[in-house]
Amino acid sequence: MPTYQSLTPELITQLEAIAPGRVTAGPDVNPDYARDEMPIYGTHAPEAAVEALSTEEIAAVVKLCYDHNIPVTTRGAGTGLVGGCVPVMGGVLISTTRMNKILSYDLENFTVTLQPGVLLQQLAEDALAHGCLYPPDPGEKLATLGGNVSTNASGMRGVKYGATRDYVKAMTVVLPTGEVTSFGSAVSKTSSGYNLLHLMIGSEGTLGIITELTLKLIPAPGATISLVVPFAALAPCIATVPKLRQSGLNPQAIEFFEREILLTSEAYLEKQVFPRVIDGTEVGAYLLITFDGNSLSALDATIEQAAELLLAEGALDVLVADTPAKLKEAWAARSSFLEGIEEQTTLLDECDVVVPVTRIPEYVVYADSLAKHYDFRLQYFGHAGDGNLHIYTCSNDMDREEFLAQVDDFMTKLYAKTMALGGQISGEHGIGRGKIKYLAQAVGETNIALMRGIKQVFDPKMILNPGKIFSLPED
Amino acid sequence: MPTYQSLTPELITQLEAIAPGRVTAGPDVNPDYARDEMPIYGTHAPEAAVEALSTEEIAAVVKLCYDHNIPVTTRGAGTGLVGGCVPVMGGVLISTTRMNKILSYDLENFTVTLQPGVLLQQLAEDALAHGCLYPPDPGEKLATLGGNVSTNASGMRGVKYGATRDYVKAMTVVLPTGEVTSFGSAVSKTSSGYNLLHLMIGSEGTLGIITELTLKLIPAPGATISLVVPFAALAPCIATVPKLRQSGLNPQAIEFFEREILLTSEAYLEKQVFPRVIDGTEVGAYLLITFDGNSLSALDATIEQAAELLLAEGALDVLVADTPAKLKEAWAARSSFLEGIEEQTTLLDECDVVVPVTRIPEYVVYADSLAKHYDFRLQYFGHAGDGNLHIYTCSNDMDREEFLAQVDDFMTKLYAKTMALGGQISGEHGIGRGKIKYLAQAVGETNIALMRGIKQVFDPKMILNPGKIFSLPED
Repeated sequence: MPTYQSLTPELITQLEAIAPGRVTAGPDVNPDYARDEMPIYGTHAPEAAVEALSTEEIAAVVKLCYDHNIPVTTRGAGTGLVGGCVPVMGGVLISTTRMNKILSYDLENFTVTLQPGVLLQQLAEDALAHGCLYPPDPGEKLATLGGNVSTNASGMRGVKYGATRDYVKAMTVVLPTGEVTSFGSAVSKTSSGYNLLHLMIGSEGTLGIITELTLKLIPAPGATISLVVPFAALAPCIATVPKLRQSGLNPQAIEFFEREILLTSEAYLEKQVFPRVIDGTEVGAYLLITFDGNSLSALDATIEQAAELLLAEGALDVLVADTPAKLKEAWAARSSFLEGIEEQTTLLDECDVVVPVTRIPEYVVYADSLAKHYDFRLQYFGHAGDGNLHIYTCSNDMDREEFLAQVDDFMTKLYAKTMALGGQISGEHGIGRGKIKYLAQAVGETNIALMRGIKQVFDPKMILNPGKIFSLPED
Repeated sequence: MPTYQSLTPELITQLEAIAPGRVTAGPDVNPDYARDEMPIYGTHAPEAAVEALSTEEIAAVVKLCYDHNIPVTTRGAGTGLVGGCVPVMGGVLISTTRMNKILSYDLENFTVTLQPGVLLQQLAEDALAHGCLYPPDPGEKLATLGGNVSTNASGMRGVKYGATRDYVKAMTVVLPTGEVTSFGSAVSKTSSGYNLLHLMIGSEGTLGIITELTLKLIPAPGATISLVVPFAALAPCIATVPKLRQSGLNPQAIEFFEREILLTSEAYLEKQVFPRVIDGTEVGAYLLITFDGNSLSALDATIEQAAELLLAEGALDVLVADTPAKLKEAWAARSSFLEGIEEQTTLLDECDVVVPVTRIPEYVVYADSLAKHYDFRLQYFGHAGDGNLHIYTCSNDMDREEFLAQVDDFMTKLYAKTMALGGQISGEHGIGRGKIKYLAQAVGETNIALMRGIKQVFDPKMILNPGKIFSLPED
């Protein structure tokens, strides 16, 4: 394991000289900085935290830490779910939340340049005011764009628009040595050497610190319509999804969820939005589908064709949300799944697997039957359109150590099934601290060795976000 | 520089044991294997060539070469334009053209799995027969998919559908050590460690040899319509492009070209397709725009709105190609630009720059005025919708050395302008042998050092396609 140094009072003074009035140390550090939204993977406070304001400040902090072998961990809004921003080796935490300016738009070339601490929600609203859509739409709207890029977040609209990766044009990066460089450019395409931009995307703050981003926008669609589609059971619900994708109707989002998680979410919201019984049949599962287009009238034929297809496939009904109020209501329940679970649960873990869309039913049946062997209960929902499932293991009464042991056993089997189906162990949350072991099992020693080698090239002293994605040499 | 060994008769015998009847050596090697389509960057024959049939054969060949420090260069169809597949250090050339099987489709999950020697044209036709479109559409239809992925080729439809990168889901790779691994998977998205898949895409055969690919397809659009749009001059022609993109009409392709290159191409085809005078005004430049949709009738409103916009922006006319015959004719002239130039030219070099779409007029004016200082003539055309320009320096009467010296001076200045506009030195052709110096100037020493470091991680003995993308240490 690399030998790290502890922060001395002299070094804290030097940090203070770089970022006057924006350094905290020891017990004064914000306790939130010891964790993200999934504390089950461990909490650990940094020795000092810096509220950075600029690329230059971050470069100076990193250079200081590089010279003194001090770990550096970057944190956005801390909304991650794998412990990715937890400074497990101590050292300095750099918070980017005050680097929250949208710097400029190029509306002719459809790009926006911004600081990494801008929140997703902030960009979404601002882009819309400029007539543009930033397509990636992760559930957590209070995440930073820097964090989104670092985990290649994706969310609801991935079916039509892809993941964050597809919208990153360029970035300014502080390397672990303190050098400042840039990857990519604002143009549409490139074949100019190894794509360091794509290597940075999804690297979870282990290769460099993103200090500025240029992102791609698209013209905002003139109209958006969602369909709420109840089914009697999950199997016919999911079986409809490939047919929707083959139809050429090009939905923006296809979410699925079962009755139980809807009840959890509606209890949290204290509001019932979705129908629970249709013509005497109890609803077992739902699709929530969104289409966008130039205008409501231009979407008429699409909606009609979609409704026909859905009813032919066994939908109990097709409810249309075509006003802002109805859209907001339909999506509020979906957006509160995690909050609903968190409110009801004391011990919580999750996975973020991706399987081929057509294998979702088989996978969910497997997960349900597997879970019967354990004492926790399962809740899940997912992006049906792209095969990305969020499966939560929840308990309010288990012993913590017992919960951890059972979840580990469960996850090991679940990930093995994921890989057997040709899937991925994380679709959008990343590996962070929580999924290290499973990544190694999933991609194999050869690929892990390549990743470790790349890490060493960027970060010869291994100071940047140590103990993430893969273990430290003697972790 | 790494110390390479020459092939001995014993090693050739061992190659023959791996690929019986498919090894040639010395003077028996196909002379085409010494060059690609741009021989100005130098030709160099390999010591032996292997017509590989499988991943296992390639792994065995690479392992043998790794053990004996012998350079290995992979070649697809040899249609590259930067000398990328030229075995400049000799050694073994592996040709993938006989690995040309389309292995399987997964029509529910919209993927196709194939060998790397499948040709673009072969996949396009076969996918269409399966109701699917493979969106990337480089001009050179006889390129292999392995080559397309290795240069992140893009082509005409990039405006709407992106580059090859966006359609690569997974690949099997033989590493320079002879190990076989796989990157990516057939699912829609991932955040599972460093993205080795994206690192391989565009790495021009320097990090590993692609032996199998899983590519993403989309449902084939029901209808395609192209518009031929003549303008009096280039400036209003190009100025229309951002407006088209902002219109929300979502064209699949927006190509531009000037009168001169059209005349070259039509002379080559011995056929006049495009109008040269409209109502007494001589045509100076053209846009060739394609839209796709579910049906011809569904495209009516789009075509009408596009025509209105184009005429308001100064188009002299809008000619509609809405039958297969008319579409083929409209695109035949565009597709023959390079062949037309090649037929007329003895000394030829080119660049493949990308600039922001709105800067194309400024850039072209600069290139034209710069070219006045040299003895060669310029021909160019480009993907207006994504700012990618192919600029050819052509001469039939210059001394070769003088041509090379003048082109180098011209390119150095042109690339400097490219970078000043926030562009990239290659959009889709790659760096290969021909653009090494300019890449280093463009991305800087820090980024080149990272790329070299990555190369070393994958290829510790530097045997794979040496002398490409960046120079050998003492090149």
